[in-house]
Amino acid sequence: MLRIINQRSEAEAELQRICDRTFDEEVVHKEATVRQVLQTVQRNGDRALLDYTEEFDRQRLEISDLKVSALELEAAYQQVDKPLLNAIELAARQIEAFHRQRAPKSWVNFGEDNIVLGKRYTPVDRAGIYTPGGRAAYPSTVLMNAIPAKVAGVPRIAMCTPPGANKAISPAVLVAAQLAGVTEIYRIGGAQAIAALAYGTSTVPKVDLITGPGNIYVTLAKKMVYGLVGIDSLAGPSEVLIIADSGADPVHVATDLLAQAEHDPIAAAILITPDSNLARQVSKEVEQQLINHPRQLLTEKAIAHYGAIMVVESLDEAVELSNLFAPEHLELEVAEPWELLANIRHAGAIFLGYSTPEAVGDYLAGPNHTLPTSGTARYASALGVETFMKHSSLIQYSPAALEKMGEAIMTLAEAEGLPSHGHSVRTRITPEQD
Amino acid sequence: MLRIINQRSEAEAELQRICDRTFDEEVVHKEATVRQVLQTVQRNGDRALLDYTEEFDRQRLEISDLKVSALELEAAYQQVDKPLLNAIELAARQIEAFHRQRAPKSWVNFGEDNIVLGKRYTPVDRAGIYTPGGRAAYPSTVLMNAIPAKVAGVPRIAMCTPPGANKAISPAVLVAAQLAGVTEIYRIGGAQAIAALAYGTSTVPKVDLITGPGNIYVTLAKKMVYGLVGIDSLAGPSEVLIIADSGADPVHVATDLLAQAEHDPIAAAILITPDSNLARQVSKEVEQQLINHPRQLLTEKAIAHYGAIMVVESLDEAVELSNLFAPEHLELEVAEPWELLANIRHAGAIFLGYSTPEAVGDYLAGPNHTLPTSGTARYASALGVETFMKHSSLIQYSPAALEKMGEAIMTLAEAEGLPSHGHSVRTRITPEQD
Repeated sequence: MLRIINQRSEAEAELQRICDRTFDEEVVHKEATVRQVLQTVQRNGDRALLDYTEEFDRQRLEISDLKVSALELEAAYQQVDKPLLNAIELAARQIEAFHRQRAPKSWVNFGEDNIVLGKRYTPVDRAGIYTPGGRAAYPSTVLMNAIPAKVAGVPRIAMCTPPGANKAISPAVLVAAQLAGVTEIYRIGGAQAIAALAYGTSTVPKVDLITGPGNIYVTLAKKMVYGLVGIDSLAGPSEVLIIADSGADPVHVATDLLAQAEHDPIAAAILITPDSNLARQVSKEVEQQLINHPRQLLTEKAIAHYGAIMVVESLDEAVELSNLFAPEHLELEVAEPWELLANIRHAGAIFLGYSTPEAVGDYLAGPNHTLPTSGTARYASALGVETFMKHSSLIQYSPAALEKMGEAIMTLAEAEGLPSHGHSVRTRITPEQD
Repeated sequence: MLRIINQRSEAEAELQRICDRTFDEEVVHKEATVRQVLQTVQRNGDRALLDYTEEFDRQRLEISDLKVSALELEAAYQQVDKPLLNAIELAARQIEAFHRQRAPKSWVNFGEDNIVLGKRYTPVDRAGIYTPGGRAAYPSTVLMNAIPAKVAGVPRIAMCTPPGANKAISPAVLVAAQLAGVTEIYRIGGAQAIAALAYGTSTVPKVDLITGPGNIYVTLAKKMVYGLVGIDSLAGPSEVLIIADSGADPVHVATDLLAQAEHDPIAAAILITPDSNLARQVSKEVEQQLINHPRQLLTEKAIAHYGAIMVVESLDEAVELSNLFAPEHLELEVAEPWELLANIRHAGAIFLGYSTPEAVGDYLAGPNHTLPTSGTARYASALGVETFMKHSSLIQYSPAALEKMGEAIMTLAEAEGLPSHGHSVRTRITPEQD
């Protein structure tokens, strides 16, 4: 049963424990494995990719299998049901529409003395997108990662995803990739996929930036190659925090908690409410729904270890606790969600009101579902178009502007002990004596 | 003498070699040291900070010395010359003015069926800023890191900088910190400073985000704590690439190259020009200016190892090579810099025209001087206000909107094998049968 916590101090301790859940003790051991995989792929290229795919994914590939063929891509359209195809297309349109709003734009500003300052935004040349696979298929992950890259104008978007049985990749994933503007797909998973994208091989292009979620091996590999290439973030297990008032429907709240828990045995699902009656009803309903849940085992595990209901004095107190946790997903199942919003400081995505279950945002509302986990919403944001762009500062000074600012620049250069810095100004504003 | 390269293939190889210069072989050894420092600070807190300061900075501090006192902060104003104070104030004003332009702003959009979507920007709660110190003093680094944090609205900005002789911190740095909105200053340097900010100690607050440049120990520490806290980037040694045409003054170009080289023995200074005459003149002038250079030894080293002049066929070819290198600083000392700009794909900051030496941007033009190095301009950007902010996606659906989109969400949830995702919608749009 979903535990109910009434003590503030216990609630805080529990939130901390749940927030820290990503750092498991086996990480050090896994780091060594990942380092080895990276080095081997860097050294042996495609050959290493085949070996690791056989070892980790139990699929024996030829080099020619690595890149998904045009034939396979085309065939995927025939293998996806019409309703699913429609849903993927709808989601793609909505995600693209949202990401096109307020996308970064270059600008310049003309100041006094003909000074021009600005920022010029350009996309990365090549992006690499990782999509988990194997037994599961996540077309939504493909859309959420590739569409922002497409909107950014990235010319080359390479996707890696591990092969399932018979080397196959889910047709829904292949269709989503084509709709989202992916330009090439490779049948590679795990740390070896990250290595291939970071170093390049004969078959896989070296990219500038790698995005997308994955298991702990993928995450460790991303951290290790960070600096050589850019990465979006270090994704941890998923989590939802729901703040609900007495107006919330316990069946809805319970279902939303389970929708998080069913992701992963270490997903977290937390309800904070001032209504102890609601707390009890939700706890019961969760238990009820778990009985026939198709993913019962792992969902139960998540609920048991990282599920909790916290009963608080007021909605304000609920917001305080939420700010401590900095949840990836925050649902405000309250009558006046916009009132609570003002005091919320950290959350990856916020779902407002009784009619906005997280699933709306997971699939097709438009905002990105790649969100900061494990408390990283304290400093990080959703994946976005800006992730796939960078800007160059633009500075143009006129002789008059340099003349006016020259003295101050030379003073600062001298204070920092950098003589040529000062001289680079002096030599331009003092008439040369040859 | 500054080498002149005429072969395209040699130029490309040389650019690659220079770009890769950060990865030295001692890194693995240093990693072990840094890991040790992080663990010890995490375990022993302030005590470890004092020990490491004695070991690495040769300064024996008491715990009460760690935080710079109000008295010392006040005294700093008396110790800074009036012209320097004025220059720091001017720089602070200009940097703040630039950073206030197009700073991230929250927005919402109202769509059909009362759907509300948007992004809400909020600052991090606590930022940590690292400023190198010891024998040198960099007030400009303080301004460039702290002002964006202040503009972002960060309530608590903690700065760490190592003590010099007699435990002192440069008064110019202390003044700059106060002008820039730093709320507290700690006398700590190196990896131990990064550890203090990442984990917190009795004296130093745990922060959410760490920015600022440093030596290899600081950089390795930042990479290791990344994920627990946010970081701005992994800064490498500085570099300039200058594209110049026949209209450029060889004295100016040579001085600008030296202004980069004088930073660091592994700073890089590259000129690319179609004018072989200019190439020869610049090479000679660099040699000339090096003779009496106050930082001769290290500047000469940088020029010898990581300096080069490349003579190309055309300005277009110069731009191609520049795009391969993705320089931190790019100077366009050409008659029509805005024409070249269109084809430039990667650069941290671009200085346009004959009257814009890099020093203008280093100190007070306004754009940030914390820029992506070592080719990371392929995917990364200057530090900015957005570095200190994050956004939450906002999603509100009405019952009507959920009704309309429900089918597609349920189809996608089913395809991904996540039953409660679909159920969280179904239970809201189907009348409940109790």
